[in-house]
Amino acid sequence: METKTRVTVIGLGEMGSAIAKALLDRGHSTTVWNRTASKADPLAAAGAEVAHTAADAVAASPLVIVCLLDSGAVDAVVGTLDAAVEGKVIVNVTSGSPAQARSNAEWARTRGAKYVDGGILGDPSDVGRPNFLLSFSGDRDGFDAHREVWEDLGTLTYYGEDAGLAAVEFLAQVAVGYEFLLGLLHTFALVKAEGADVEGFADRVAGSVGGYVPLVQAFGTAVASGEYGPDLGSLTVQAALMDDLISHRESLGVDTLRMREVKRLMDRRIADGHGDEGFSSLFELLGHA
Amino acid sequence: METKTRVTVIGLGEMGSAIAKALLDRGHSTTVWNRTASKADPLAAAGAEVAHTAADAVAASPLVIVCLLDSGAVDAVVGTLDAAVEGKVIVNVTSGSPAQARSNAEWARTRGAKYVDGGILGDPSDVGRPNFLLSFSGDRDGFDAHREVWEDLGTLTYYGEDAGLAAVEFLAQVAVGYEFLLGLLHTFALVKAEGADVEGFADRVAGSVGGYVPLVQAFGTAVASGEYGPDLGSLTVQAALMDDLISHRESLGVDTLRMREVKRLMDRRIADGHGDEGFSSLFELLGHA
Ligand SMILES: NC(=O)c1ccc[n+]([C@@H]2O[C@H](COP(=O)([O-])OP(=O)(O)OC[C@H]3O[C@@H](n4cnc5c(N)ncnc54)[C@H](OP(=O)(O)O)[C@@H]3O)[C@@H](O)[C@H]2O)c1
Ligand SMILES: NC(=O)c1ccc[n+]([C@@H]2O[C@H](COP(=O)([O-])OP(=O)(O)OC[C@H]3O[C@@H](n4cnc5c(N)ncnc54)[C@H](OP(=O)(O)O)[C@@H]3O)[C@@H](O)[C@H]2O)c1
Repeated sequence: METKTRVTVIGLGEMGSAIAKALLDRGHSTTVWNRTASKADPLAAAGAEVAHTAADAVAASPLVIVCLLDSGAVDAVVGTLDAAVEGKVIVNVTSGSPAQARSNAEWARTRGAKYVDGGILGDPSDVGRPNFLLSFSGDRDGFDAHREVWEDLGTLTYYGEDAGLAAVEFLAQVAVGYEFLLGLLHTFALVKAEGADVEGFADRVAGSVGGYVPLVQAFGTAVASGEYGPDLGSLTVQAALMDDLISHRESLGVDTLRMREVKRLMDRRIADGHGDEGFSSLFELLGHA
Repeated sequence: METKTRVTVIGLGEMGSAIAKALLDRGHSTTVWNRTASKADPLAAAGAEVAHTAADAVAASPLVIVCLLDSGAVDAVVGTLDAAVEGKVIVNVTSGSPAQARSNAEWARTRGAKYVDGGILGDPSDVGRPNFLLSFSGDRDGFDAHREVWEDLGTLTYYGEDAGLAAVEFLAQVAVGYEFLLGLLHTFALVKAEGADVEGFADRVAGSVGGYVPLVQAFGTAVASGEYGPDLGSLTVQAALMDDLISHRESLGVDTLRMREVKRLMDRRIADGHGDEGFSSLFELLGHA
């Protein structure tokens, strides 16, 4: 007796292969397709059906997961499908932009398919674990119809019928992470230039990251309400430090891009009479800074 | 019987007052001084001795804590002390640069005082709690002599005899936090421009910050060893996303400063044949990017 949904996975790179393998492990009949056919071999050995064309793969299952490199790859593959998608639920977890998600949704709608856009935060090795985070938006019925498949893969959030919303969330989360991580790498350069131990410093940053959690929440509340308390101390006290911080970095040839911006925004905010507010109040100057 | 060290606190702003109050609460005889004398009143009411000059305050105790706005303020006050510091342990927790810390240490040494430089990560309201983080460097004997006083105030780390090291740590930690927080504020602008809920987004970021901890440690290990695995996926996969991310931000008038730098570094690293490595390998291009 087959109780689990049959699923098709299109794209067998690192992520698509990990998803297909997890589906097989959890008992889903799985059909796969990849441009370079040899990447299907390990999955065939694990029990997957291998389709000869992407259109055949789509025909095999009610739920089709697309996981390719980028939206150019999606366009290339989807262009070969056309009528095959009618009546299917297409869930595209390829990272892309909100605009692309919205135009994919429109393409699917005119062909009688339900389109769901997805974003993945997590490593291929985390598929099936709670820290594998999947964001979805788009056709609600399409998402609900196969929710149990997704629940096998990770932690889900559905953002709404506008297919672009998952990409907004994904791009926003990625940017926050990259801001932090590139700033961290520049600071590693500072620590190294001072002859201090980079690994020990990294461990201490790892230990202080937990302290960001209440700050992030407080910043969200402050920005949403427009009421800014003296988080991290007043801007007047914080600004007093920035020239030291910038000239120290300069003396070692280390990046000052964001720190100059921070100083400029702090000075502007203080000049506008908000020196008693905190860092979060710099938000008021963004976009017109 | 008096078993606790007598302590002097110079500078009674938000932070100095909180420190003096915590010392009184923990049973230390405490002498205080502030340029604007009225700020000493609540502490006098709580049992502090109030000195009339900074030199008198220094004379009162073997341990002198200096907590002023910035290094300009420290220079102004310290210039009035001179011979009074002989035989004292001076611990300056005013935020400043490594160079200033080193020159303060030299100033103290020639006057027969032991100098310890300190950095504070934490809120005045956290004094006395484990999340009040104090970094120290400089004269080891001076630090050890009054360690029990500091243990009453928070969690301590001593970085070494070079008085500049605590400031290196402090400036580095502050910069990592500011990079993250300014990037976060710009991303709030993005989320808001897309009509999504900023507070809900902040809650989700708060929920994902814990995922940074193993990444930060892995980045430290990678940079220290020069061996870069495919953290966050390969650079080839990550770079495929960056044009989407940048043009999405541009379409909404949101900052792209760091994201352009990330893309440029990724492209360079891929062109150099390192497309299979991860984000941490961008470190190799910093300083000569
Ligand atoms: N890996 C991660 O850690 C991670 C994390 C979160 C999100 N993601 C997202 O998941 C998606 C897939 O990532 P991945 O790591 O699996 O990438 P990958 O290992 O590089 O695989 C890329 C896939 O795209 C296919 N492809 C590329 N161009 C194509 C074209 N023009 N026509 C047809 N197929 C094409 C490749 O087929 P060939 O085998 O024929 O080249 C391969 O199946 C990306 O959008 C990525 O951002 C990945
Ligand atoms: N507040 C925080 O959340 C926090 C967190 C970490 C580190 N810190 C660091 O702690 C230090 C003190 O911060 P704070 O919040 O206490 O600042 P604050 O409330 O603004 O107090 C500044 C203090 O400096 C004194 N001062 C300024 N210029 C002076 C001068 N030329 N001569 C003599 N005294 C002068 C002020 O005296 P008057 O009363 O006479 O003006 C006051 O006592 C700073 O270095 C800050 O970076 C603060």
